[in-house]
Amino acid sequence: MQAARLHEYTDEMADALSIDEVDRPEVIEGNHVVVEIEGAGWCQTDNHVIEGMWEEQMGQSLPMTLGHENAGTVAEVGEDVTLVSEGDAVVCHPARTCGICRACRLGQDMHCDNLVFPGLSTDGGFADYLLTSERAVIPLPDGVDPAEIAPHADAGITAYHAVKKAVCELNPGEHAVVVGVGGLGHIGLQALRTMSAAEITAVEVKDEALSLADDLGADYTINSRDSNVADEMNAITDGEGVQQILDFVGDDETLDYAPSLLSGGGDHHVVGYGGHVHEPAQTLVNGDFGYRGTLVGTYPELQELMALVARGDVELRTSRYDLAEINDVAEKLEHGEIEGRAVITP
Amino acid sequence: MQAARLHEYTDEMADALSIDEVDRPEVIEGNHVVVEIEGAGWCQTDNHVIEGMWEEQMGQSLPMTLGHENAGTVAEVGEDVTLVSEGDAVVCHPARTCGICRACRLGQDMHCDNLVFPGLSTDGGFADYLLTSERAVIPLPDGVDPAEIAPHADAGITAYHAVKKAVCELNPGEHAVVVGVGGLGHIGLQALRTMSAAEITAVEVKDEALSLADDLGADYTINSRDSNVADEMNAITDGEGVQQILDFVGDDETLDYAPSLLSGGGDHHVVGYGGHVHEPAQTLVNGDFGYRGTLVGTYPELQELMALVARGDVELRTSRYDLAEINDVAEKLEHGEIEGRAVITP
Amino acid sequence: MQAARLHEYTDEMADALSIDEVDRPEVIEGNHVVVEIEGAGWCQTDNHVIEGMWEEQMGQSLPMTLGHENAGTVAEVGEDVTLVSEGDAVVCHPARTCGICRACRLGQDMHCDNLVFPGLSTDGGFADYLLTSERAVIPLPDGVDPAEIAPHADAGITAYHAVKKAVCELNPGEHAVVVGVGGLGHIGLQALRTMSAAEITAVEVKDEALSLADDLGADYTINSRDSNVADEMNAITDGEGVQQILDFVGDDETLDYAPSLLSGGGDHHVVGYGGHVHEPAQTLVNGDFGYRGTLVGTYPELQELMALVARGDVELRTSRYDLAEINDVAEKLEHGEIEGRAVITP
Amino acid sequence: MQAARLHEYTDEMADALSIDEVDRPEVIEGNHVVVEIEGAGWCQTDNHVIEGMWEEQMGQSLPMTLGHENAGTVAEVGEDVTLVSEGDAVVCHPARTCGICRACRLGQDMHCDNLVFPGLSTDGGFADYLLTSERAVIPLPDGVDPAEIAPHADAGITAYHAVKKAVCELNPGEHAVVVGVGGLGHIGLQALRTMSAAEITAVEVKDEALSLADDLGADYTINSRDSNVADEMNAITDGEGVQQILDFVGDDETLDYAPSLLSGGGDHHVVGYGGHVHEPAQTLVNGDFGYRGTLVGTYPELQELMALVARGDVELRTSRYDLAEINDVAEKLEHGEIEGRAVITP
Repeated sequence: MQAARLHEYTDEMADALSIDEVDRPEVIEGNHVVVEIEGAGWCQTDNHVIEGMWEEQMGQSLPMTLGHENAGTVAEVGEDVTLVSEGDAVVCHPARTCGICRACRLGQDMHCDNLVFPGLSTDGGFADYLLTSERAVIPLPDGVDPAEIAPHADAGITAYHAVKKAVCELNPGEHAVVVGVGGLGHIGLQALRTMSAAEITAVEVKDEALSLADDLGADYTINSRDSNVADEMNAITDGEGVQQILDFVGDDETLDYAPSLLSGGGDHHVVGYGGHVHEPAQTLVNGDFGYRGTLVGTYPELQELMALVARGDVELRTSRYDLAEINDVAEKLEHGEIEGRAVITP
Repeated sequence: MQAARLHEYTDEMADALSIDEVDRPEVIEGNHVVVEIEGAGWCQTDNHVIEGMWEEQMGQSLPMTLGHENAGTVAEVGEDVTLVSEGDAVVCHPARTCGICRACRLGQDMHCDNLVFPGLSTDGGFADYLLTSERAVIPLPDGVDPAEIAPHADAGITAYHAVKKAVCELNPGEHAVVVGVGGLGHIGLQALRTMSAAEITAVEVKDEALSLADDLGADYTINSRDSNVADEMNAITDGEGVQQILDFVGDDETLDYAPSLLSGGGDHHVVGYGGHVHEPAQTLVNGDFGYRGTLVGTYPELQELMALVARGDVELRTSRYDLAEINDVAEKLEHGEIEGRAVITP
Repeated sequence: MQAARLHEYTDEMADALSIDEVDRPEVIEGNHVVVEIEGAGWCQTDNHVIEGMWEEQMGQSLPMTLGHENAGTVAEVGEDVTLVSEGDAVVCHPARTCGICRACRLGQDMHCDNLVFPGLSTDGGFADYLLTSERAVIPLPDGVDPAEIAPHADAGITAYHAVKKAVCELNPGEHAVVVGVGGLGHIGLQALRTMSAAEITAVEVKDEALSLADDLGADYTINSRDSNVADEMNAITDGEGVQQILDFVGDDETLDYAPSLLSGGGDHHVVGYGGHVHEPAQTLVNGDFGYRGTLVGTYPELQELMALVARGDVELRTSRYDLAEINDVAEKLEHGEIEGRAVITP
Repeated sequence: MQAARLHEYTDEMADALSIDEVDRPEVIEGNHVVVEIEGAGWCQTDNHVIEGMWEEQMGQSLPMTLGHENAGTVAEVGEDVTLVSEGDAVVCHPARTCGICRACRLGQDMHCDNLVFPGLSTDGGFADYLLTSERAVIPLPDGVDPAEIAPHADAGITAYHAVKKAVCELNPGEHAVVVGVGGLGHIGLQALRTMSAAEITAVEVKDEALSLADDLGADYTINSRDSNVADEMNAITDGEGVQQILDFVGDDETLDYAPSLLSGGGDHHVVGYGGHVHEPAQTLVNGDFGYRGTLVGTYPELQELMALVARGDVELRTSRYDLAEINDVAEKLEHGEIEGRAVITP
């Protein structure tokens, strides 16, 4: 089969991956599932993987097939698998987990002691077939097209997971700020809209993204190139401040929003990354606020997100590309030229 | 009456405050309470106030009497006051709050829209008498000596408030690290010990402080001058990592413990301040952890701390000084030469 | 002024209250507020008060003016009041609270040690004027008509409070059942719709109420006279069961829904009353579920509900009556003949 | 091997079970674990099983070997098992769960769609060997004797689970009541003591049990045969009431404690069973309290309880019996003649 593989870390996206002919993965253990990929989302993290930013944390060995937002049709199952069978449409949770360690037992998939992460720590889904396991597949409702919802497998649950933490702290009349309305942000905004009655402000540098935010239910929008975000939020909140910031960008500038935007007891959720948190401890103490990192989400959260999709409460903006176009996609995203989410359809 | 007042910001502790003769405060509004001070704790924050570090946030105008950890005997009450009467022993919550704004109504005293903070935003308790209000006084049980427990008014509830947040996330068998076993830390450690069954490690640079930690119930101690804290914690936790860090120091070095110590989903509570949080966003994302600032605590939390004192679960290490010695105290604390907590007894 | 007063407990609604000429209340204490009533909602609890069902718990002494869902215009304020002034439109939280006791300090208004409840423990708002206090009034946004939103003062926050507890436990794809779509239920249903993405089923005995539920966003409706509720819910939830029951009826039949409807870990929120909870302990143990009583709500919750009203997320179905018609209203409600909520406009 | 089996439901404990010679269970599936039993606790639920009280809910088919509190040594493991190997000392979580269904993925073991419960739904541990699975065994620390801690497998985690829910709602100075200091209660009391600083009152009908409660850290004790519990608690709490009731008895009398003991917002945790909850809905509404059923606990909770055991914070009072004495044990428990917990050692 064909697979888009990284052979060495590079900053040149234009020829980062090569399309190799490799063996199709096969079921070896009783809980294995092989999925024929129909869609695999391209993520900013793929660019970061190519740059070598995850080499150490993930213990990568190259060459490796990228792709961690996968959906498709079950092609083969191990003998112990009961949840799905050949021919079922599924979306894949990005982590293969053991189900035995304490973290798994607590329902905290992403902290699994034995976590395997296709596309980051082993071969992923920019290929005709993907090897995963029973604990990592979610059957799709009838009529849902795997290629259509593939980006929910990682972009979606990451955004949803952060939103779910924020929603617990947001009452009607209180304010949330969504920073960045791209691949993750446009999902997060919709989840926030449907799961809370908070006042929502979207902050972006692109007017088209703010127009999308408006369509998706933002109460207010701010272009941070044109306006001072702190002044605007002060006016919008009548000086009361913001309870929750959902930062889907995570550069130095956006990570500095917390002190000037948050009211006492608020949170700045760090979802996007690339920049640094750099603040005096006194600022956190005096403002009584927190920076909270957020890492993907759990399997049940992906089920919940699929329920939102089924209700029509969250829709994805996607564009499709062939496997052969994958380096173009990498380069376009690097330059902010992808609308919504790019999906590779091998 | 006599009062220790700051006339200008300075880095020289030796003659920072002057003992002035000023008018005794009097009850003007119906909810006012005048307390004859029997003990007022000296806090690291007093040094920071002298240095001008809180000028802007608190809108200070000098001269101002310092002192925000106050306890004593009620000397006079306004006509609407029912909770206490003349002669009652009380400890003072550090903030005078309105009881009307949304934050007060939610039980979040420290976020009161109309908060007045004696010793930081108006005259405090390094004086014979203090003006406060009904919502800021807690009657003491019979036999409790106000001078003995004065530091609980701020050091105590600040430590307790942070511990209470951490306890919610700490199950038996899980690990907490207490960084700093000084004025706040030695209270926090005891509260943590009595309110949880977690494994507790104390980290300090002074061996006497570690010995105190041992007496107060720490399961493990580490001198961070002698050992690598991350290596030690890795060994203590069998590689599982720490769930909660309570950082009562807050300098650059301790604020960097989070990435190497915390397990997934953990928190680094920022209580002490002076240094900076400086981390790549990717570190917070990959570690799925948070930095959480913590600002004092609420009136009910001070009641709860008094219950711990009454149970004998939390004891204070204090040393007493006359008002005339106050600049010596300031200088000694600056050089780390105060054991436990210094209490001024006017 | 005129006031509708109860002189003795009775089961005869037709002449339960008499319209008496009484003195207008006046400001005596610094925090007092006198409100000219523009609307006062009639509640099932008023019928229960007339029957004597609250005599003991509330320590009532007759004659007493009923009416605990009040809104109007500020007519006079005490000298300490800063939140409102004469001429302001306000909705009244039903409880006058002290702001001093531990419950008030925790933000749990309804557990105030010194709670006074106009219409249940002292004179209420079925009159031209009502005496209340600063901590019990919420200013209304411009353009909101007090008579229009008066029922939110009690029916509204009671429903909202229960919904808020349920929402914390309801994820997308999970199921809630709203039992009763009358005065409280039609508010609760809307709050649930806007604050969660759960699947909502409304259960009623009246088809018009189910039609209203459908309009207000219920995903499913069941007429419990025509269908077996357990069988229907089993089908709707694919055998998974219901996570949260919001019981706005509270008769013997509806209180028995829990064992057959709830999935493990679920809750049956008891809001309406009249019937009994009667279950073997083994049923609660085996089902791992709870019955949770719910008593009104807090002042901040009434602020939040006003935010929902301002957003257009919750609308009230009301009908208006003169003070002289008040006994007719009592009798009509007794026979289930009031559509939406009756508002008395003195 | 020998096994104590129930052939028909009966109220006669004296010859309820027969000691049969049956085949030793063997590993069939890859995740199976066979444990050689060293201790199996006898539980009130065993009496209820004999009486037929769990026939319907558990879909039992007789004959069946009883015994659901099991600990011992691993005798054989399936090929996929990595957590334990032959010869390891283990305690068994009472439920065998699938790890695949949504409840398992959420960490809610007891709500597993495919739950198998040895001793209640299939053959249990009153036998030489027990068949269980990898997800149901917890390795014991060196030096811990399986026979000594067997009752923690069910009595222990059930008590611990209830306590953990209560602890979240209990601040220092607030009050908890532990009803019943027998097999579950004496564990629950110790867990409560070590995990909270609340004031604890033990209620019992036997003075020896109250004396044990006193030894284990209760602050107050009440013999409910001699004193009125409501009056006593009113005095102990200064009229403030109790926040949390942990009812390890669950008969008609104790289930009626809630209305007279609880303060607003409190909970009555139903752990023991046998009686009925029977209260007017108005009582739950006016008291703003809840009845919360509690069903066993999760695997991570059993790990946490083992951590408490390892810390020396929870000790068990047990007495040991041979398999041949099992009907005597059943009869003695029926008459309240077992001190602490009886452990069968096959």
